[in-house]
Amino acid sequence: MAQVSARRRAYEIIEPGIKRDRLALWFERASILIILASVAGAVSSTVPGLDPDELEGLWLGELVCGLFFLLEYAARLWTAAEHPVFGGANGRGLIAYVTSPLMLLDAAGLVPLFLLALRPQAQGAMLIFQVLRFFRLARYSPALATVGRVLTNEWRPLMAAGLIGLGLLLVAATGMYLIEHDVQPTSFGSIPAAMYWAVVTVVTVGYGDVVPITAWGKLFTGFVMLGGLIFFALPVAIIATGFLAEIRRRDFIVNYGMVARVPAFTGLDGAALAELVSLLRARKFPPNTIIIRKGDEGDSMYFIASGEVEVVLPHQSVALQEGDFFGEVAVLGRVKRMATVIARRTSELLVLDAADVVKFMEQNPRVEAVLRAAMTARQKIQEDEPA
Amino acid sequence: MAQVSARRRAYEIIEPGIKRDRLALWFERASILIILASVAGAVSSTVPGLDPDELEGLWLGELVCGLFFLLEYAARLWTAAEHPVFGGANGRGLIAYVTSPLMLLDAAGLVPLFLLALRPQAQGAMLIFQVLRFFRLARYSPALATVGRVLTNEWRPLMAAGLIGLGLLLVAATGMYLIEHDVQPTSFGSIPAAMYWAVVTVVTVGYGDVVPITAWGKLFTGFVMLGGLIFFALPVAIIATGFLAEIRRRDFIVNYGMVARVPAFTGLDGAALAELVSLLRARKFPPNTIIIRKGDEGDSMYFIASGEVEVVLPHQSVALQEGDFFGEVAVLGRVKRMATVIARRTSELLVLDAADVVKFMEQNPRVEAVLRAAMTARQKIQEDEPA
Amino acid sequence: MAQVSARRRAYEIIEPGIKRDRLALWFERASILIILASVAGAVSSTVPGLDPDELEGLWLGELVCGLFFLLEYAARLWTAAEHPVFGGANGRGLIAYVTSPLMLLDAAGLVPLFLLALRPQAQGAMLIFQVLRFFRLARYSPALATVGRVLTNEWRPLMAAGLIGLGLLLVAATGMYLIEHDVQPTSFGSIPAAMYWAVVTVVTVGYGDVVPITAWGKLFTGFVMLGGLIFFALPVAIIATGFLAEIRRRDFIVNYGMVARVPAFTGLDGAALAELVSLLRARKFPPNTIIIRKGDEGDSMYFIASGEVEVVLPHQSVALQEGDFFGEVAVLGRVKRMATVIARRTSELLVLDAADVVKFMEQNPRVEAVLRAAMTARQKIQEDEPA
Amino acid sequence: MAQVSARRRAYEIIEPGIKRDRLALWFERASILIILASVAGAVSSTVPGLDPDELEGLWLGELVCGLFFLLEYAARLWTAAEHPVFGGANGRGLIAYVTSPLMLLDAAGLVPLFLLALRPQAQGAMLIFQVLRFFRLARYSPALATVGRVLTNEWRPLMAAGLIGLGLLLVAATGMYLIEHDVQPTSFGSIPAAMYWAVVTVVTVGYGDVVPITAWGKLFTGFVMLGGLIFFALPVAIIATGFLAEIRRRDFIVNYGMVARVPAFTGLDGAALAELVSLLRARKFPPNTIIIRKGDEGDSMYFIASGEVEVVLPHQSVALQEGDFFGEVAVLGRVKRMATVIARRTSELLVLDAADVVKFMEQNPRVEAVLRAAMTARQKIQEDEPA
Repeated sequence: MAQVSARRRAYEIIEPGIKRDRLALWFERASILIILASVAGAVSSTVPGLDPDELEGLWLGELVCGLFFLLEYAARLWTAAEHPVFGGANGRGLIAYVTSPLMLLDAAGLVPLFLLALRPQAQGAMLIFQVLRFFRLARYSPALATVGRVLTNEWRPLMAAGLIGLGLLLVAATGMYLIEHDVQPTSFGSIPAAMYWAVVTVVTVGYGDVVPITAWGKLFTGFVMLGGLIFFALPVAIIATGFLAEIRRRDFIVNYGMVARVPAFTGLDGAALAELVSLLRARKFPPNTIIIRKGDEGDSMYFIASGEVEVVLPHQSVALQEGDFFGEVAVLGRVKRMATVIARRTSELLVLDAADVVKFMEQNPRVEAVLRAAMTARQKIQEDEPA
Repeated sequence: MAQVSARRRAYEIIEPGIKRDRLALWFERASILIILASVAGAVSSTVPGLDPDELEGLWLGELVCGLFFLLEYAARLWTAAEHPVFGGANGRGLIAYVTSPLMLLDAAGLVPLFLLALRPQAQGAMLIFQVLRFFRLARYSPALATVGRVLTNEWRPLMAAGLIGLGLLLVAATGMYLIEHDVQPTSFGSIPAAMYWAVVTVVTVGYGDVVPITAWGKLFTGFVMLGGLIFFALPVAIIATGFLAEIRRRDFIVNYGMVARVPAFTGLDGAALAELVSLLRARKFPPNTIIIRKGDEGDSMYFIASGEVEVVLPHQSVALQEGDFFGEVAVLGRVKRMATVIARRTSELLVLDAADVVKFMEQNPRVEAVLRAAMTARQKIQEDEPA
Repeated sequence: MAQVSARRRAYEIIEPGIKRDRLALWFERASILIILASVAGAVSSTVPGLDPDELEGLWLGELVCGLFFLLEYAARLWTAAEHPVFGGANGRGLIAYVTSPLMLLDAAGLVPLFLLALRPQAQGAMLIFQVLRFFRLARYSPALATVGRVLTNEWRPLMAAGLIGLGLLLVAATGMYLIEHDVQPTSFGSIPAAMYWAVVTVVTVGYGDVVPITAWGKLFTGFVMLGGLIFFALPVAIIATGFLAEIRRRDFIVNYGMVARVPAFTGLDGAALAELVSLLRARKFPPNTIIIRKGDEGDSMYFIASGEVEVVLPHQSVALQEGDFFGEVAVLGRVKRMATVIARRTSELLVLDAADVVKFMEQNPRVEAVLRAAMTARQKIQEDEPA
Repeated sequence: MAQVSARRRAYEIIEPGIKRDRLALWFERASILIILASVAGAVSSTVPGLDPDELEGLWLGELVCGLFFLLEYAARLWTAAEHPVFGGANGRGLIAYVTSPLMLLDAAGLVPLFLLALRPQAQGAMLIFQVLRFFRLARYSPALATVGRVLTNEWRPLMAAGLIGLGLLLVAATGMYLIEHDVQPTSFGSIPAAMYWAVVTVVTVGYGDVVPITAWGKLFTGFVMLGGLIFFALPVAIIATGFLAEIRRRDFIVNYGMVARVPAFTGLDGAALAELVSLLRARKFPPNTIIIRKGDEGDSMYFIASGEVEVVLPHQSVALQEGDFFGEVAVLGRVKRMATVIARRTSELLVLDAADVVKFMEQNPRVEAVLRAAMTARQKIQEDEPA
C-alpha cells in the first residue's frame, strides 16, 4: 500500500498538470532549467577556442544533465501504471507508452549519455541529440501540440497551397534556367541549381548571391517575385488562421472550467453559459500588480476564478476572493473607476468587456439583478465612508 | 452492348472521382507517379556532365512517359461520350471537350514526344512542355481550380490593388531615376532599368545588387519601402481572404453530404442543418490511428461519416460504424475522456466542438435527447464492467 | 436650347459613369489608352541611346497627348455647369471644381505641354508631370479613392502604429550607432546614417549593403529584426483590414441596386433584404463564357441582374433574362448540375451559396415557395424531353 | 483656497485630456514640439563634422529643453495631489506616482541635464537618455499603452509562438553548423555564429552577408526559409489580431459616450444601444471639409456627436448642431445625395452604413419613426424651394 502511494506521489510530481503543489512546481521549474542548461551547454561546446577547463566544465554539465534525464526516464517507466491512458499493468500499455512521441523524445535525449561513454568522437550525432532535447519543453507547453493539430486539421488546403507553390517554383526555376544558363552557368547551370534562386526569391529572403543579369531575366524575376508574394501567403494565412482558431478553442475549454466557480453564473442554462464563455477572456495577474487604477475608463468588469484581490478605498481595504467580481460600478454607471484594485496573490480573472456586459445582462435578467444589487451595495459603502 | 460497357468502365478508371474502386485508385496513383517522374526526368536532364548511360536512361524514361500520356489522351477521346458535360456524340461536344483547359494541357504534354522524333535539337521548347506536365496534377487536386475561382471572384479589388501597386512602382522608378541616374548610370540609367530596382524593393526581396548610394536616394528608398510594405499587402490580403472563403465554401458542400448519413440528425429542418454543417469540421483518420486518448480534455465530439472506429474499454472493445457518434460523455458531463478511441479503417469523422455541442443542443431539443440517451446508456456500460 | 443640349451631351461623354452608351464607353477607352501611351512615352524617353527619329516620334506623341488633355480640360471647364456637385453658374462652384483633386491632377498633366514650348531643357520637371498623369486613371477606377477613405477612416490606429514604428526605428538606429560607429564609420557614422540601415532592416528588405559586423551588433540586429517583423505588420494589418471592409461596403451598395431588379425578391421587408444583400456576391461574365457545367457540384444558385444566359438542354436551349434565376435545382435537390449554362451577353449575376440559400429560405417562406415552384416546373421540362 | 485653485489649474494644463481648453491644448502642442526638438537635436549631434557654432546651438537647445522638462517634472510633483489615482497627500501615494512608468520616463529625460553639468564626456549614456525622451509622447498617444495591453492579453499564445520560433532557429543554426562549418569556418564556425544567419533568414530579411555555398546547405536553407515564412507569421498574426481587437474595444468606449448625446437614440434599451454602438464608426472632420458631396452614392448616414455642419442647398444653407443627423434621405430613399454637407467647425460624426441603417430600424421601430419623420420634413423643404 505504501509502495503504491509512493509511486502515485512520484507520478504527481514528475507529470505536469496533475497536481499543482509546491514540489511538483519546483520539479517542473528545475526540469525546464536543466533542459535549457543542457541545450545551452551543447550550443556553447561548438564555440572554437575553448580552454581545457571550460571543456571539462561542459563535459561535466552534460554528464549531470544526462544522468538527471536518465533518472527521470526511469521514474516515468516506474510510474507508467499510474498514467490514465497507458495504465493497466499489461505489456501493451507499456509499449504504447514507450513509443508515444514525448517518451521517444525523452529516449532520444539519453543518446548523448551513451555516446559520451562509447563513441565520444561522434560529435555531430551527439550535437543533434543534445539540441533535440529542446523539444522536451513541449511537455510543459502545449504550443507544439497545437501546431501539430493545425497541420492535421488543415492538411487539405495546405496540400493545395503547397502544390501551387511547387508549381510556381518549378516554372520560376525552368524559366530562369532557359533565360540565363548561358550567361551565368554557375548559378543557373541546371534547373536544380536555379531552384535555390527560386526559393530564395519567392519567400522574399533575397540574399542577393544569385541575381538575374539580363534584361529578360530581370523582367521574368519581377513576375516571379509578385507571384511568390501572393501565392506563398496562402500557406501562411492557412496556418495563422488555423492557429488562432485552435487557441480560441483551447481557451474555451479552460474558461468553461473557471466560470463554474463564479456563483453569479450558477443557474445559467447551457446556451447562455456557452455564449458567456465565448465573451470572456482569461487573464492572470502576478501578486501585487495593479488590475485597475482609480480614475481610468471603466471598459470591462472582472470575475475572480482563483486568487485574491484587494480593493483600495481611501480609509479601508476590501479583500475579494474566488467567485467574487468587481469593476461593475464603473461599467454599469458609466463613470470612471472609483477605486484601485490590486492582485494580492497570483489571480486568474475572467474579463468581460463593457459592451458584452450590457448585452449579456439584457438577455439574462438574473445576472443583471445580481450585478445591480452588488453595485448598489458597494456605492453605499463608499458613501458611508468618512470623507 | 459489351462495347459500351467497356467504354464506360474505361471512363470510370481514367476519370478521377467517378467511382473510387481499386482499379481507379491504382490508375490515379500510377498517373500521379508518372507525371512526377516525367517532370523529375526533365529537371534532371538539365544537370551538366551527365554520362551517356544516364542520358540514355532519361531519353528512355521520357519515351515511356510520353507513350503513357499518348495512350491516356487517346483513351480520354474514346470515352468522351461518357462525359456528363461534353457527352452526346455530336461534334460540337467533342470540340468543346478537346479545347477544355485540362485536355489542352494534356495535349501540350504530348508535344515533347513529337519533338523527340522530329526536332530533337529544340531542347528549350521541349523542356517547357515537359515541365508544363506538372500542372496535369490539377486533375487530381482541385487546388488550382480554387485559385482560378478566387481570381475571378475578386478581380475587381485585385485590379484596384494592382493599379495602386503599379502607380507606386512608377513613382518609385521615376524618383530614383531622377535622383541617381547621374551617379549610377548602369542601375538607374533609365526608368525601365530603375523599375527592376523598384520591384525588388517593394516586394521586400531586396537582393542588394542595386541600392541607393546618395543621401536623397536613401531617404526616398525609405518611403518607397514603407509604401511597398503597406500597399503590396493589399493583393495578398485579397487573395488569401478569398482563398480561405472559397475553401470554407467547398467544405460546406462536402460536409452537407456527410451529415445526411448520421441518423441523429434526421428530422432537422433546413436552417438547423445548415447551421450544423457550418459548425462541423471534417477530419480523415488513417487506419489504426488514435482519435481520442483516455484522460485528455473532452473538447469535442465526433460523428462517423464513413469507416469504423473501436472504443477501447478495460475489459472489452466496442466497434462503432457509419452513422454512430462518440465523445459526447466527456463533453456533456464535463469530465476527462473515459476511453481511448482508435480508427480501425480509414474513417471520415465530423468534429463538433464542445462549445457548439452545447449551443446547438439548446436550440434542438431532439438532438439533445438523442445525445443524452446515448450518454446514459454508455455510462451504464462502464459501471457494469467488472472493475 | 440646342446649346444646352450639346453641353449636356458632351458632359455625358467625358464624365465616366453618367450614361454608359457607345460614345461614352469609346471615349473612356480612348482616354485610358492615351493616358497609358503618354506615360509609356515618358518612360521610354529616359532610355539612353535613342536615335533622332525615335526622339522625334516621342516628341510628337507627347504633343498629341498633351493637346488631347488640353482639349479635354477645356471641355470639362465648359461642362462644369452640368456637374451635380459644382453646377450652378456662380463663380464659387467653378473655383471649387477647378481645385478639386481630379481637376488639379488634370491641370498638372498640362504642364509638360507648356514646358515643351517654354523650357524644353527642364527634363526632370517634365518627367515628373508626365508620370503624374498615370493617376488620372483614378477617374476611371475608384481604387485610389478607396485607399484615401481607408487612410481617413483609420488615421487614429495608423498614427498609433506609426508612432510605435518610429520609436522602433529610433531605438534601432541609436543602438547601432553606439555599437558600431567606431568600426563602421561610413555606414553607422551618425544616427541619420544608421536610420537607413534601420528602415532597410525592419521592413525585411535587407539589401545587405549595410550589415552589422560585431557580435553585439549582430545580436542587437536580431532583436531589431524580430521587432520590425511584428510591429511593422500593424499598419499593414490596419490598412488591409480597412481596405477589405471598404470594398465589402461598396459592394453592398452596388448589390442593393441589382437585387431590386429580381422579381423573386419583391415584397421582402427591409431587414430580410439587407441580410440577403450581405449574402450575395456579384460576378460579371463576358459573352459566351460557361457559368455552370453539367455534372459539377451544385454549390450555389444565380440571379440575373443584367444580361442574358442560355441553358443548354439536350434537345433545346432556354434563354433567361434579367430578373430570372437558375441553378436552384441542383442546390435544393442536392444533385449534380443537370445542364450547362452559358452567358450570351455580358451578364451581371448575383451568386448565392448553397448554405445561404437553405438558411434564407427557411426564414422567408415566400422566397422558398417561388424557388420550389420554379424547380418543380423545370424538372418537369426535363422529364418531358424526348430521351 | 487660492493656492489650491492655482494647483488645480496647473494640473488641468499639464495633464492631457482633463480639460481641453485653449491653454491646455497650447501646452500639449508645445510639449510635443519640445520633445520632438529635443530628440531631433540629439540625433543631429551625432552627425560628424559639425562646426563649433552648430555644436553650441545644439548644446543650448539641449539646455533649454532640459530645463523645460525639469520645470514640467517639478510641476507634476506639485500637482500630484490633484491626481485622481495617486492623490491624497500621504507619502505612499507620492511614491507610487513617482514610480509610475510615465513619471520614471520623465525622470530619465532629466538625466542628460545632469550629465551635461557633471560628466559631459559620457556621450553614449547621454544619447540613450536623450532618445528615450521620444517615448514621453506616450502621454499624448495611447498607442504604446495599447501595445502593452495586447502583449499582456496574448502572452500565452505569444509564448507558444515564441517557443516554436526558438526551436526553429535552434534547428536551423545547428543544421547549418553541421553542414557548413568546415567550408565556412568564419560564418558557421559555431552554433551562436550560425544563429545570426538563422535569424536573418527566417525573418526574410536576407542580407546576403552569410549564405550557404554547398548543395546540402542550399537545400537545408530552402526548408528553413519556408519554415520561417510560416512559423514567424504566427506571432505577427497574434499581435496584429490582438491590436485590431484592442482598438475596436477602445472605440466602443468612446462611441458609447458620444451616442448618449444624440436625441434620436434616447429611450433605446441597453442591448439595442450596445448593438448600435458596435455598428457605428467615429470620424473626425476638420473645419471646412466636405463630408458628403451632392450626386454621390448614399452609402451611409451621419450623427453629429460634436461640432457643426452646414447643408448647402441651392438657395439657402442649413446649419446642423450636436445631436442632429443627416444623410438619411439618400439612404432611406435609395437616391443619390441631394445636397453637399460641409463641416463648419471640427466635428466628430458617427457614421452608420446604409446596410446597418436598414437592419437597425427594422428592429427598433421608434428610431425608424424618428428618421422617416425627419426625411419627410427635409424632402418637403427641398420641394418648397424656388427652382
